Parts: sequence; structure tokens; C-alpha cells
Amino acid sequence: MGHRKSKGVTIDADVVAGNGLLDRRVFLSGAAMSAATGGITFPDTAAGDPLPVESWMKTPGAPFVPYGQPSEYENKVARTFTTAPGTTGTGASRTPHHLLDGMITPNGLHFERHHSGIPDINPDAHRLVIHGLVKRSLVFTLDELTRYPMESRIAFIECGGNGQLLYQKEPAQVGVQQMQGQVSCAEWTGVKLAALLQEAGVDPKAKWILAEGADAAGMSRSLPLAEIMQDALIALYQNGERVRPANGYPIRLLLPGFEGNMNVKWLRRIKLTEGPTMTKDETSKYTITMPDGKSLQFVFAQEGKSVITRPSPGLTMKEPGFYEITGLAWSGYGKIAKVEISADGGKSWAPAALQEPVLSKALTRFRMAWRWNGGPAVLQSRATDDIGYVQPTREKMIADRGSRTIYHSNAVTTWGVSENGEVKHVYA
Amino acid sequence: MGHRKSKGVTIDADVVAGNGLLDRRVFLSGAAMSAATGGITFPDTAAGDPLPVESWMKTPGAPFVPYGQPSEYENKVARTFTTAPGTTGTGASRTPHHLLDGMITPNGLHFERHHSGIPDINPDAHRLVIHGLVKRSLVFTLDELTRYPMESRIAFIECGGNGQLLYQKEPAQVGVQQMQGQVSCAEWTGVKLAALLQEAGVDPKAKWILAEGADAAGMSRSLPLAEIMQDALIALYQNGERVRPANGYPIRLLLPGFEGNMNVKWLRRIKLTEGPTMTKDETSKYTITMPDGKSLQFVFAQEGKSVITRPSPGLTMKEPGFYEITGLAWSGYGKIAKVEISADGGKSWAPAALQEPVLSKALTRFRMAWRWNGGPAVLQSRATDDIGYVQPTREKMIADRGSRTIYHSNAVTTWGVSENGEVKHVYA
Repeated sequence: MGHRKSKGVTIDADVVAGNGLLDRRVFLSGAAMSAATGGITFPDTAAGDPLPVESWMKTPGAPFVPYGQPSEYENKVARTFTTAPGTTGTGASRTPHHLLDGMITPNGLHFERHHSGIPDINPDAHRLVIHGLVKRSLVFTLDELTRYPMESRIAFIECGGNGQLLYQKEPAQVGVQQMQGQVSCAEWTGVKLAALLQEAGVDPKAKWILAEGADAAGMSRSLPLAEIMQDALIALYQNGERVRPANGYPIRLLLPGFEGNMNVKWLRRIKLTEGPTMTKDETSKYTITMPDGKSLQFVFAQEGKSVITRPSPGLTMKEPGFYEITGLAWSGYGKIAKVEISADGGKSWAPAALQEPVLSKALTRFRMAWRWNGGPAVLQSRATDDIGYVQPTREKMIADRGSRTIYHSNAVTTWGVSENGEVKHVYA
Repeated sequence: MGHRKSKGVTIDADVVAGNGLLDRRVFLSGAAMSAATGGITFPDTAAGDPLPVESWMKTPGAPFVPYGQPSEYENKVARTFTTAPGTTGTGASRTPHHLLDGMITPNGLHFERHHSGIPDINPDAHRLVIHGLVKRSLVFTLDELTRYPMESRIAFIECGGNGQLLYQKEPAQVGVQQMQGQVSCAEWTGVKLAALLQEAGVDPKAKWILAEGADAAGMSRSLPLAEIMQDALIALYQNGERVRPANGYPIRLLLPGFEGNMNVKWLRRIKLTEGPTMTKDETSKYTITMPDGKSLQFVFAQEGKSVITRPSPGLTMKEPGFYEITGLAWSGYGKIAKVEISADGGKSWAPAALQEPVLSKALTRFRMAWRWNGGPAVLQSRATDDIGYVQPTREKMIADRGSRTIYHSNAVTTWGVSENGEVKHVYA
């Protein structure tokens, strides 16, 4: 087994921070690489094919299908969900980030937040209305929208309540999916809302819009016109194909960087108004209650944030040696500028590699080389975005905001690695 | 109806090429926009909600599911496939690009080319062997590969036979899916092959590799080591989740820009050799037979290319007015630098907008504003990449290569629009 060999590898020159964080150059050394995996074997195979011919090579494989699915061996790669008592479609589902890699979330695993289930919308009957303080009200069919100029945008969407367990006094014994699974990223394509508003002719008195969904909850949010003119899309496509029912089929509002439920799904109506409408979804929910009992309302951008997805709880480390620490970072303010990693609970930090392309308001994959020495380790990631916003520690977040809210939790998430390789959620 | 109004819109200043091609600024004019869709109605709705409350708003919607699917209303958005006589899994399936938008192909719609069906591989039993001219042979389990440093890459894969109908004497009466559907694009994540080879220790005599798949065809290709060290990935993830069975589960070789079947699926073996192995898949197939009967072997890169996906056959245009012309461009040599559009069969051209991010060896979405005047039109796109390679006309491709081959057809595809709005494949 390769592990024994790893003891002799000289890697000190590559150490970049405490408890085994290494420069990525270490992986370019063949010697270090042989230590990376404990299970490498060296069969005596100079002459021929060293592998048995497996059963699946002996008969023709499966036929074509019109729309493909994942391997059945991957059926644990699934969303988990919690629903309100007595309901089946009201609640949230979470993306299994510990089992994924890259920046794109496949459509079948995009997180969901539904307020009254997923409506079964007939696209031929669906309409988008723009009305209120406009020169002329407009109604669009999907066919009509499809003739407009489109724009594509790789963007994350994060539920305002994602990461809320960090407000709890004791560290919840869950993994990255339950902790931080209400954020996903897709390539969205649609029509710029600004173009449609220009066509309707905006009354100068209009300063806000109301966006309303066609679900049974009539989920609706108010948004300031000035803030959304630049980026808002009427999204028709998600990762190439039409938006999934769970994500707003046939159309959703996409507001890159903004709180998840402002990206109104099943969009049916944009009404231009003088002020916010004060819907149930922005008064009874999605406000940040501060320690003094007052609430912050209309907190639009999801703040800069990151989380390590591997290693993480449930992915037990089998033996000491080389690993890659990887995870996701994002900011509703812009691009990720830097992600730092600590393996010693925040005593020392080193910058991770950021996977190109690094895009504004999209998930950014980060990677860091690590040699786990088999001792206890405390893993953290800390994101900084291009406006200089730094992801806070949990301590700082709670000092600033208290813990009376469940929203906009963007503090550092900490994974503790024990000597047996088990990974747990801890507070550092 | 808005169409009548469009007659009065002054747009001459925005004309950029013949037969109605327009600068994209035209879409920023409210007046022009109102002409973009013929079906806009102007309900008298100043006061209230102008839409009926649809049935799906009156009862709670569908519950959560672990892995989501597209709307049932979208079941025509599917791959079409052709199989060899007497088989169900040997042939090719094609991506329905006329019904998609953006650059990412969703995993369920990625094109396929199988030589003996899709093997049902147990990932725990699967091994990757590196052997031949190396210091030490290596065998990897999937668990071991997962500990190595990963890299993500958004890349197209195109079958060497994509577009082959352009070699036919008469224009095939099919659409973009049948003509050009054997190209797709995904975010692939995996381990750099160079890192694994470095660990194995490459014998200086080794100049080529053999890459072999674990399907019943044992599909295998030879590749020159120098050409693949930079980019080759052992891909484990496709758009975030594990590679789909149809695309090589549990691992495939990714060679951005190279002929599709060199990206060996179900990868089981990399053997380092002095020269090419001359497998059946690079002698009996995937060679370009020239007019003199000699064949070009080992043509690695897919050349620069583009195709208009909308409008295209099957997407009949209902009335004159404003449309967006959109499509995809790609080059195995690098980034797309320019896509030009003609609406008059190549007499005049204007540059399309390229959707950012424009990535090397990835699909690039292009967009162009067009006012269709209701007369005949001949639509073409022509890609230029960043090494200056220009996509050839069909005439030039056939002058250079003859028409004895079916491979590497990258000529301009032409859509003819007739007065009734029907779109057909034509030769211009």
C-alpha cells in the first residue's frame, strides 16, 4: 500500500499553512502523488491486459433512450427535503453538494423552496402580464417571449434561509447538504426584463415592482426598479433546456445574487408600483429580526460566503495521506476574489486555487492540497469577494445580528476531523 | 396586433447587412420591441389583476421528489437516434439544439455514439489501469481517483461524423438536430491524466497512448502523448453529477476539442506505447478518405464551425417582424473569435454578439437581431476562431476534401426561409 511510502516524501517546502495545507505544486510531483492514494497496487502486467474482462464487456449494452438518467448506482445522489406538517409540497429540498463537483448543479438536483407545492402549468395557457404604472399593459405568451433577444447567465440562487442552523447554540450534527444545500448554480437563459419594461413604457412615478408567481401560494415579492434593471432576466431555459417545474416552469424571474425567493418562480405578473406592496412573503417571512426585536426588511443580496464540500460529514477519511480539500464560494455582490482555507481552526490560512471561469454571482469552485497526518484537524473556508466583503466567523455574525433570525446566515462553516477520519460539524 | 405597427418603425439606421440583419441596439428601442412579437395584446387592466386565476393556482401543487425531471409538456425535447440494423444500442443519438438555448447541454440530452450499447458498470468493480511503457503500472479504484486534485472544464464534444449530410449531393430535408445534433457541451470535472502519468513514470520511449473503453466493443483509440498532456482529464463528473452511463460512467477520457470518439467512454485502460496501436476504430472508421482514395488518419481536432439553431427547420415563422437569430459556434483549436451572419445567402455578412463567457473548446452561443420582411431569406453563420481559422463554405470543403468521407464536416449550414415562414435545409 502506498501510505507507508508517503512517510518518506519530502514535502516541507510545499507547506503553506498549519496542519498540512500544501501548495498545489505538490501534486505535480510523482512521488507525492503516489502517496495521495493509499490503495494503489502494482500488478505485474508489463506484457498484457492486467484487467479481467468484466461481465459488461461480454454482451451488448443498453439501448438508446430519448432522455437519459443517472446510473442506478448513483441513486443516493439525491435531494433531501423537509415539508411543513400535513403537506407534501411546502418546504425545501437540498442539493447534495458533498457528492458533486464543478460549479454547475444538474437540473434534477437544484435545490427547491416551495410555498404550496409545484404547480402543473400548461405552457400554452400561461401568460406574463406587465401592468400597473406603465404606459400600456402588456400580455405575453411563451411563443412571443421566445422571439425576443435572449441572454445567458451562469448564476447561483440561494434561499434566504440557507445555513440557518449556524444560528443554533450547539452545532447541528448534520452534513453539508442539510447545512448549506439550499444554494445551486445553473446557466439561465431568458429575456431581459428591462427590454420588456421599456416596451411597456415605465411611468416615472414607478419605483418598485411586484413579481407574482402562479403557484397556489401566489408567492410574491416587491423589488426596487433601480436595483433590478441591469440584471433581471425572464428565464425560460435552465442549463440549456426549459426551466424545470420545480424551478418555475415555464418562466421564472432571475435576479442574480438576490435572495432566493425574490427570483419568483412560475412568474405570471410584474406590476409597477410607487412603493413596495408588503406581501405576506416579505412581512411574515424573509425579514431579519435583530436582537432588539426590530426587523431588517428587503435585504436583497446574499452576502459573500463559502463552504467546504469535501471532506465533509458523511465522507469518512479512510487513512492519512494526501487529499484535495474542495468547496464552493459565492457572493451576491459580485465575483469571488479569494478563498482562504484553514486546517487548524482559523489559526493559519492559505489561499485556495479558484477554478476558472470565475463569474460574478455564480458559484466558484475552490481547491486546496492537504496532507492529513492522521491527527485532529479543524477545516474552514473563508471567502472574500471583489468589493472586499469578507465572510464573517460565526462569532462575528452572531455578535452583529444576534440569533433571533434564520435568514442570511453566511458565517464560516467548520468541519472537525477526528483521528478515526470521521468528519463532524463543530463550532471553532 | 402589433405587427401592423411595425411597418411604421424607423429602423434603417440599425441595418448592418442585407435582408434585415440589425444592430442589437434595435431591441433597446421600445418602439421596435413592440413590433418584435405579433401577438401582444393590450388588455384594459389599469386597476387590477388582468389574468384569470388558473386551475393550478387553486390547489396545492406537486410534492418534492429526490431527483427532478422536465415538465411533461416538454416531452418532445428529446434525443432522436438511429441504430445499426438488428441492434438497439449501436449507433448515435442527437441533441435537439433547435429547442435549447444557452451553452450547456443538459445531461439527459447530451448526444451519444455507442459502438455496442451502454454497459451497466458497477463502479465498485471498475478499475483504471495505466501500464505499458511506464516505470510502474498503476491500478486505480474510483475511491482512489476521487482523492486526487480535480479540474473543471466546460468543453464541447463532437462526433467525428457530425454534419456528414453536408457531403451529400442534394440538401437533406432534415433539421438542425439531424444535421448537427452530434455535438454537446458540459462542465466536466476530473483528474488530470498528466498527473497520473507522472506518478506512473513515463518511459522516454513512450510517444503514444492507447485508451480503451469497457464496453462490449472495447472501443479504443491511439493518441500522441505530446498532444494530450496539457488538457486530458479523467472525467468523473458531468455538469456537477457523476458522468452519465451514456457518456462513460463511471469515467471517461476528456480531450477538449478532439474528435468525439477519442474521448473514450467507460475508460478502463491507458497503455503507453511507442507508436499508434492501429485499432479497428482508427483504421476501419474515423479516417477521412480523400478524392484520390488515400485516407487521412488521426485527425485530432474538430475544426472551427457554427450552426444557426433558431430559426431552423421545424420552427416555422408565423409572421414577418423582429426575430433573434441564434446558434452555436465552436472550434477544437481554441476560442471562437467571431461569428458572422448572412440573411442573403452569403452576399453580405454582419457580426453576431457572442455570449460571455467565451471559453476555449466550448460551445459559444451567438445572437443577432433580424427583421424578417416576409420575403425569401437564406440564413448562414460563419465562425472564425482565435487562431484565425475560418469555417469554410460547403463548396470549399468539398473542393478541398471531396465527398468520399463522412467525417469532419464543418462547412456552413444554410437554412432557406420561404414566404410562408417555412425553414428548409438548402445549399446556397
